[in-house]
Amino acid sequence: MGDEVKLLDFWPSMFGMRVRVALALKGVPNEYVDEDLRNKSSLLLQMNPIHKKIPVLVHNGKPICESSIIVQYIDEVWKDKAPLLPSDPYDRAQARFWVDFIDKKLFDGGRKIWATKGEEQEEDIVLIGYYTWFYAYETIGNFSIEAECPKIMSWVKRCLQNESVAKSLPDPKKVCDFVLQMKKKYGLD
Amino acid sequence: MGDEVKLLDFWPSMFGMRVRVALALKGVPNEYVDEDLRNKSSLLLQMNPIHKKIPVLVHNGKPICESSIIVQYIDEVWKDKAPLLPSDPYDRAQARFWVDFIDKKLFDGGRKIWATKGEEQEEDIVLIGYYTWFYAYETIGNFSIEAECPKIMSWVKRCLQNESVAKSLPDPKKVCDFVLQMKKKYGLD
Repeated sequence: MGDEVKLLDFWPSMFGMRVRVALALKGVPNEYVDEDLRNKSSLLLQMNPIHKKIPVLVHNGKPICESSIIVQYIDEVWKDKAPLLPSDPYDRAQARFWVDFIDKKLFDGGRKIWATKGEEQEEDIVLIGYYTWFYAYETIGNFSIEAECPKIMSWVKRCLQNESVAKSLPDPKKVCDFVLQMKKKYGLD
Repeated sequence: MGDEVKLLDFWPSMFGMRVRVALALKGVPNEYVDEDLRNKSSLLLQMNPIHKKIPVLVHNGKPICESSIIVQYIDEVWKDKAPLLPSDPYDRAQARFWVDFIDKKLFDGGRKIWATKGEEQEEDIVLIGYYTWFYAYETIGNFSIEAECPKIMSWVKRCLQNESVAKSLPDPKKVCDFVLQMKKKYGLD
């Protein structure tokens, strides 16, 4: 192909993980660049001058930003293998609706659990997303996602049966350690 | 075509306007239903049980929610006329990036102007979107968009040269009256 694909990312980012999973499912070779978010590289600032955020996919020198937009881009460019969105327009719209829902609700729900203390944590607990952060949520929020949301957990297990998916995600315990460090740093422990 | 297309909307909504413009550009006949947002119809609650928000496009009885998702759906279903997104994947990703940017930044920027008093209004003024609300922003925020952002205004004028676009948008003065009523209602005047 001659394609040069670089992913500017940060390993615990659930948004970055989306892109990693998409690239793995499509079998797209890429150079992974782990950013230090307190000291962002000049490449990141140059490639995403608007939001200055990871993930950014740099494809043959041109940047694509925002994880759900990157995933659609990957699906449209590498369309011969592993379709990521349904082919029917109505089904595509439904898929996009839930991506949007996850972006709007689950991220905020998860953030509340690690970035707050006490009572507030009880809000939105059923809305928690993203498997690699589940262990951290469970540890910090003191509840079991498997007990509260068995269907989500069985979906997670089905996803992890796919080797490309499993291999492109970090260890949930490593994510939990990271979150506990963050809480400490911000005086939230 | 035999398509039954119904749009659940609220006339000053800039999100609804997107869908109205898309339908007009594609020439899709549709039934427009103006919702009373303080007393939402059972159809709206049934068609968008998650967010309970307008706009909702009901196509042959099936709902599509979230304005930017509806616009993509319209583009994919009625693809023979007036493409709304570029055909090149990179250009599509760029278009989606700016739609997302508008959703995240401009709406909040605009909201600050009508829903706040004094100093706060000065923030984000350069980020204001959507022509039909411009007159309201100018009146309430006491500034001229044409003077601050001549390129946006010349873009607006180019857009309005398209009869389908011009005809599907409400009168900016009517929007301004509506906003002034809202400010009064919430004690923000």
